[in-house]
Amino acid sequence: MANSPTVWVLNGPNLNLLGEREPDTYGGETLADIEKRCAKVAKQAELALEFRQTNHEGELVAWIQESRESAAGLAINAGAYTHTSVAVHDALRLLTIPIVEVHLSNIFAREEFRHHSYVSAAATGVICGFGGDSYILALQALNNIISDEN
Amino acid sequence: MANSPTVWVLNGPNLNLLGEREPDTYGGETLADIEKRCAKVAKQAELALEFRQTNHEGELVAWIQESRESAAGLAINAGAYTHTSVAVHDALRLLTIPIVEVHLSNIFAREEFRHHSYVSAAATGVICGFGGDSYILALQALNNIISDEN
Amino acid sequence: MANSPTVWVLNGPNLNLLGEREPDTYGGETLADIEKRCAKVAKQAELALEFRQTNHEGELVAWIQESRESAAGLAINAGAYTHTSVAVHDALRLLTIPIVEVHLSNIFAREEFRHHSYVSAAATGVICGFGGDSYILALQALNNIISDEN
Amino acid sequence: MANSPTVWVLNGPNLNLLGEREPDTYGGETLADIEKRCAKVAKQAELALEFRQTNHEGELVAWIQESRESAAGLAINAGAYTHTSVAVHDALRLLTIPIVEVHLSNIFAREEFRHHSYVSAAATGVICGFGGDSYILALQALNNIISDEN
Amino acid sequence: MANSPTVWVLNGPNLNLLGEREPDTYGGETLADIEKRCAKVAKQAELALEFRQTNHEGELVAWIQESRESAAGLAINAGAYTHTSVAVHDALRLLTIPIVEVHLSNIFAREEFRHHSYVSAAATGVICGFGGDSYILALQALNNIISDEN
Amino acid sequence: MANSPTVWVLNGPNLNLLGEREPDTYGGETLADIEKRCAKVAKQAELALEFRQTNHEGELVAWIQESRESAAGLAINAGAYTHTSVAVHDALRLLTIPIVEVHLSNIFAREEFRHHSYVSAAATGVICGFGGDSYILALQALNNIISDEN
Amino acid sequence: MANSPTVWVLNGPNLNLLGEREPDTYGGETLADIEKRCAKVAKQAELALEFRQTNHEGELVAWIQESRESAAGLAINAGAYTHTSVAVHDALRLLTIPIVEVHLSNIFAREEFRHHSYVSAAATGVICGFGGDSYILALQALNNIISDEN
Amino acid sequence: MANSPTVWVLNGPNLNLLGEREPDTYGGETLADIEKRCAKVAKQAELALEFRQTNHEGELVAWIQESRESAAGLAINAGAYTHTSVAVHDALRLLTIPIVEVHLSNIFAREEFRHHSYVSAAATGVICGFGGDSYILALQALNNIISDEN
Amino acid sequence: MANSPTVWVLNGPNLNLLGEREPDTYGGETLADIEKRCAKVAKQAELALEFRQTNHEGELVAWIQESRESAAGLAINAGAYTHTSVAVHDALRLLTIPIVEVHLSNIFAREEFRHHSYVSAAATGVICGFGGDSYILALQALNNIISDEN
Amino acid sequence: MANSPTVWVLNGPNLNLLGEREPDTYGGETLADIEKRCAKVAKQAELALEFRQTNHEGELVAWIQESRESAAGLAINAGAYTHTSVAVHDALRLLTIPIVEVHLSNIFAREEFRHHSYVSAAATGVICGFGGDSYILALQALNNIISDEN
Amino acid sequence: MANSPTVWVLNGPNLNLLGEREPDTYGGETLADIEKRCAKVAKQAELALEFRQTNHEGELVAWIQESRESAAGLAINAGAYTHTSVAVHDALRLLTIPIVEVHLSNIFAREEFRHHSYVSAAATGVICGFGGDSYILALQALNNIISDEN
Amino acid sequence: MANSPTVWVLNGPNLNLLGEREPDTYGGETLADIEKRCAKVAKQAELALEFRQTNHEGELVAWIQESRESAAGLAINAGAYTHTSVAVHDALRLLTIPIVEVHLSNIFAREEFRHHSYVSAAATGVICGFGGDSYILALQALNNIISDEN
Repeated sequence: MANSPTVWVLNGPNLNLLGEREPDTYGGETLADIEKRCAKVAKQAELALEFRQTNHEGELVAWIQESRESAAGLAINAGAYTHTSVAVHDALRLLTIPIVEVHLSNIFAREEFRHHSYVSAAATGVICGFGGDSYILALQALNNIISDEN
Repeated sequence: MANSPTVWVLNGPNLNLLGEREPDTYGGETLADIEKRCAKVAKQAELALEFRQTNHEGELVAWIQESRESAAGLAINAGAYTHTSVAVHDALRLLTIPIVEVHLSNIFAREEFRHHSYVSAAATGVICGFGGDSYILALQALNNIISDEN
Repeated sequence: MANSPTVWVLNGPNLNLLGEREPDTYGGETLADIEKRCAKVAKQAELALEFRQTNHEGELVAWIQESRESAAGLAINAGAYTHTSVAVHDALRLLTIPIVEVHLSNIFAREEFRHHSYVSAAATGVICGFGGDSYILALQALNNIISDEN
Repeated sequence: MANSPTVWVLNGPNLNLLGEREPDTYGGETLADIEKRCAKVAKQAELALEFRQTNHEGELVAWIQESRESAAGLAINAGAYTHTSVAVHDALRLLTIPIVEVHLSNIFAREEFRHHSYVSAAATGVICGFGGDSYILALQALNNIISDEN
Repeated sequence: MANSPTVWVLNGPNLNLLGEREPDTYGGETLADIEKRCAKVAKQAELALEFRQTNHEGELVAWIQESRESAAGLAINAGAYTHTSVAVHDALRLLTIPIVEVHLSNIFAREEFRHHSYVSAAATGVICGFGGDSYILALQALNNIISDEN
Repeated sequence: MANSPTVWVLNGPNLNLLGEREPDTYGGETLADIEKRCAKVAKQAELALEFRQTNHEGELVAWIQESRESAAGLAINAGAYTHTSVAVHDALRLLTIPIVEVHLSNIFAREEFRHHSYVSAAATGVICGFGGDSYILALQALNNIISDEN
Repeated sequence: MANSPTVWVLNGPNLNLLGEREPDTYGGETLADIEKRCAKVAKQAELALEFRQTNHEGELVAWIQESRESAAGLAINAGAYTHTSVAVHDALRLLTIPIVEVHLSNIFAREEFRHHSYVSAAATGVICGFGGDSYILALQALNNIISDEN
Repeated sequence: MANSPTVWVLNGPNLNLLGEREPDTYGGETLADIEKRCAKVAKQAELALEFRQTNHEGELVAWIQESRESAAGLAINAGAYTHTSVAVHDALRLLTIPIVEVHLSNIFAREEFRHHSYVSAAATGVICGFGGDSYILALQALNNIISDEN
Repeated sequence: MANSPTVWVLNGPNLNLLGEREPDTYGGETLADIEKRCAKVAKQAELALEFRQTNHEGELVAWIQESRESAAGLAINAGAYTHTSVAVHDALRLLTIPIVEVHLSNIFAREEFRHHSYVSAAATGVICGFGGDSYILALQALNNIISDEN
Repeated sequence: MANSPTVWVLNGPNLNLLGEREPDTYGGETLADIEKRCAKVAKQAELALEFRQTNHEGELVAWIQESRESAAGLAINAGAYTHTSVAVHDALRLLTIPIVEVHLSNIFAREEFRHHSYVSAAATGVICGFGGDSYILALQALNNIISDEN
Repeated sequence: MANSPTVWVLNGPNLNLLGEREPDTYGGETLADIEKRCAKVAKQAELALEFRQTNHEGELVAWIQESRESAAGLAINAGAYTHTSVAVHDALRLLTIPIVEVHLSNIFAREEFRHHSYVSAAATGVICGFGGDSYILALQALNNIISDEN
Repeated sequence: MANSPTVWVLNGPNLNLLGEREPDTYGGETLADIEKRCAKVAKQAELALEFRQTNHEGELVAWIQESRESAAGLAINAGAYTHTSVAVHDALRLLTIPIVEVHLSNIFAREEFRHHSYVSAAATGVICGFGGDSYILALQALNNIISDEN
């Protein structure tokens, strides 16, 4: 798949513990499980996949910057930084590729402080509330847009 | 498809004019175009489809109530009533099936008064910003959940 | 009871589903059950009763206007329109008869967005939190006022 | 009426002057007049009545605590403490009997600072705007609930 | 006047009762009186006139949509929906003709909740405070703009 | 026109530069052009005209005071002082003649800080958004009121 | 001075410690010192003086009520209850005599939470910032009004 | 009185019309009447008096600056500039003499936008609500402080 | 322990019912139990203990004032007055000894209106969330400070 | 102490400079001094101690996650991240052990932006204002809870 | 320097007293001192200098308008009008030359009401906090831009 | 330049991409270009220069701490952390050297969420809006202050 377009999937803080953390809210699937499912979907769509997680705001910023060199599309679940990081917002504004904001839970039905997102204003679209399926739908959405462009 | 589960897709005010209205924001596809695409996807998933549009808040409320009798899942683009209708919110709270909030545009990147949704708090998930594809992704999301349940 | 004064009881959106909807909050009684209890109380008080429900804001406005011709008192449970309808507020301001705002649940102990009522500022009094009994108490309150006036 | 259930009616600051104070808003009836009417209604319903007034927040708190020993229901017009007293709110939360918040005037149609009530969130229901009749309706509401429980 | 440009005048909830409702605020003229005056002015300006009233938000939305086919200009007094309807706002945004927001009273000198208008942001201009004359001035304003364009 | 009633038209800061300033928003007409058009309309209506402009808040206050001696009506475009001057508001409150607030642009469709007006609460009516025509419509509105009074 | 009009001076919580408490803000004079000065001024003005202090909100309410029987004027320094007591506000609203709000310090130049006063809206006038002299000026102000009335 | 300390009394916009303007709120006394009464009081206290009025914010600022050369105390009724002028606030902060804020009416019992004062935070004390007597009391307050200092 | 330093522990409204009230939030220990534990700890630290409870704001104020005569340190659980009492705040500001604010529950994790404390701004430190242990920790904290000072 | 339960103490940004930074607010003790005192207390309580500091939000998140493997209790002074970090909040919510929020100074008596804590809502209790002693008290509090559980 | 580009430096209210006013905040330099320093810098940069001060908002507006005829750049310290004058904002919006907002003190580190500037939104850049040097840096900034343009 | 005072210039997130990112807002100069220009200016002023960039909040905090050992002045462009980082604010408060806040664009004329800066309250002054020149002006400002001190 050497010359396939690559889709990046970036994950923010605490998502490394998925499957252990508040399973009522987030489900029992781990981040590795989701990565596997994403890889399968990407393969079918003939897309390469770059899948990462970090707890560091600065690293997330750096990765978004780095994606500019190779990504055809970006799916991002910025976790808690969704709600606090102007730096992530600014980095996303540097990209010209399609960006999909992803969340496992429906953040708009949770605490008040999770209703505002600094990612949304820089994103093409938002998908949230479907657990691990949110990622799969995001890859499909990106694939639609990338295909349309070509 | 007599005994297939039925998915309802309900549309609120001004969506009947889709394709004419602010094409920069909403794209050139009409609501009939979207309905056709939805029908095709539904057929593949062996789902029946009930697709409607109204400008009346009260009619939207009545349809949501009516869906309780036959729907296995509901996708709703409540248009402007998204931001103002407690009545739609209350009607959605009556349902026990999965509900997907749909928007053509990324409402969180538009005017301030479109950032709050009375639909979100009663929905399973949200998909917005992908034009007509938002509906297709919503049907896929509903299908995933319906299939999981069976 | 041809020449008896008539009391109108108007009900807003989703109240047609009473008994099915969130029984923990609203109880198991249906709107028809409540209408029957109201009819009985009205009869004892030698009042005629006009009892209606609608999901449409515009129809609620029209009925309030219509009540001006025959009503000696009005009890109104505007449901969700309580919190959003300036039109209902304006229509109620046209009346010179006593108006009682009714709610099944104690709206002031529920979500923040249910704490403000456009009906209150145009009403004589408010009764809420007693399930179907709220209606009965409202009829008694109206009867007290109507009797005092005569 | 030794073994009848007892209903407590507690009144807050300035209500001792009822009948003198802003008669346009509150009517000409005195608190003693209202107590007499309540006693009559209680007797018919075979309830004992405990009726008190105080200007002291601390005393109101103490009486609410005291009611726990004997009351089957509580009607409370906390007057100005309605809007400012977290202590009254906390005391009411200690009770497991039905509580009815009472006001002579429709507080929701008066000054902004009277729209919020610390009593409401701890009460079963609210009755306001009917002058002295608000108390009578509250006793009926309490009687309904007490009867239902037995 | 078959081929004259047509000017639409749309009226929202409760305006059907004009002349009866709060005459101190709105004057004693009925909506029919105003329609007659508008017809006379339109005739002098060689404009056709389409004059309607509804209590329904959805119908108001539909009429605004409908006006796109024939109107050269639109005057709208959305009544209470002025302050609550994003749906009316969105429908008006679909028009490319001049739009004049009309009010009988000076809404900016009334209650706080009447100070914000969802119509204003989509209108060419605003005229309010002159009773029935507000409509006449609106027709003159529309006529000026239509004449300028031709 | 010695004994004709006089109409005052007062203009606030920066309006002396009309025609140069942001022509997209305000049009290319100068204040002198508008004065000429006003004079013509006034003559037809047999009204005398007093037309002035100042950049000084204090002078605007003084002129409003002065108008009390001779004006039968006042049209005022207070420019930026519309949004900041309680002193202008207080001066206008001294008048008993009809007052029309005028703006060239639709201030309610511009920046947030232009949505509040200290003039509105003291004015009979508001006309805005019609460029120089706003003044003509204001004179007509004043003439209607003055004629009605006589 | 048996038949002289009586002026009441009521003091709220913590004022009994005057002279010890934050002397930089309140000065070194005790409440007894101020009472003596007030007595002297009252005597010159041929007024009787009733001077009291309490830490209890309920007692302050009761004293305000009591003053209705004999006071020709009331000066009140409600201390901290100035900012929190709706009950004091309601009691003051019962009076028809002139009321002067008094403070030792200029409360408007202190912490934000001292800028709002529930006393002001029920008072004839306000005097603050002059230490013990505030009381003397208040007595003079009351004497002026009482003399004018006679 | 050549070497007497001088007290300045400065008046802001619209106060030149005192006696004509809203007499229910401000009383029938003119500013000249008040000046005469002040002159008399000043003479008794062996103070010289400088008494001025202006509608211009800039002039008020200049006079406050000028007072630094000769004034032993300043009484200021900044009228509407009280609520809007940071420039007046800054000028007052330049003074080291006692400053008394004066208002004819009780501004804290009027419209919300009159509750905040930019003068208060720079003043020694506040006197309001006593009509023309507010000025007399202010002169007495200033005299007390000036005498204490000497 | 005649000459030991004394530590005061003051308790506000409803704390007399500890052990009965919402045991999930506050635990099953009574206030008497806590007093006993405090006495034991005080004894070990060679401190005298003054332990009191009241439902009256005024009495709490008076006790804080009284503590000035003998206390070496003060622990205060002002209960509901924590959130509403400026009078308690002012009284605490009179003290020069260390003050520890105590709460049984973690008030910052409860309802919004319990997040603000008028006690905090006048306290040395805050200890909350440890049930009865909060008192023990507060005594230890006070003992540390008192020992350091000596 | 191989098998002792371990207590973690985590410190956020700038705490490495303790003793140098604003000694008036934070005291002269260094973080190493505090660690030594904690070690001593832990030893007495037969607890192992893990004591760390970081300036990185992401590292703080990672350490909180890591503590899940070995900690019996956690004391956390998140420094500035207390007020801004939803990521820290989310990580703390993953823990099931007792958590004590610690601060050297009384944050509720400092700048407004330090009054809100994202740590509080996820903590068992809060201890602040006692300098280095806050840590000691936190260890005691944790020890009480851990002992109770065993 | 007849044909040199001219730079205008405009100063608002109270700046004429520089050197006397709150020297801790603003330094001991007078406005004349600053003008001299500016003249020297302008000369080196071969720029003409127009340096003015006024206490009048209207005059500041007029000068900004006047600058349009000859200025190549504008430095403005609008003093208190920075925070309150929409008129100054509007006048600045008329200019097409570079505008530098200047302040002696760091307004963002002072009182809350000095944090908002109506000048900023119309300015190229902002320089504040360096005393008289702020002006020198502003001239250098303007010179850089003017040189770049040529 | 071994013994020259050193000036530190610290840059926050995304500034490493300068020249690529939104050139309309930030210009085409890269951060390396700016560093070169700074080095030249520093050399002329006989200052050593330490110039760094990081995407990590924690690293920025660490560098600010580190600067305490050698810096004579600090210029900081904290990028997005300007608006969100209390940790950066706290670190800056540790410094006693002059601090200049720098921004390429005029942040006060951009989105609302960029108007508040946690850096400002800890800085000597602010320079923004001049692209790369902002840095040069900041170095000059620092040099002025450093020279004055010596």
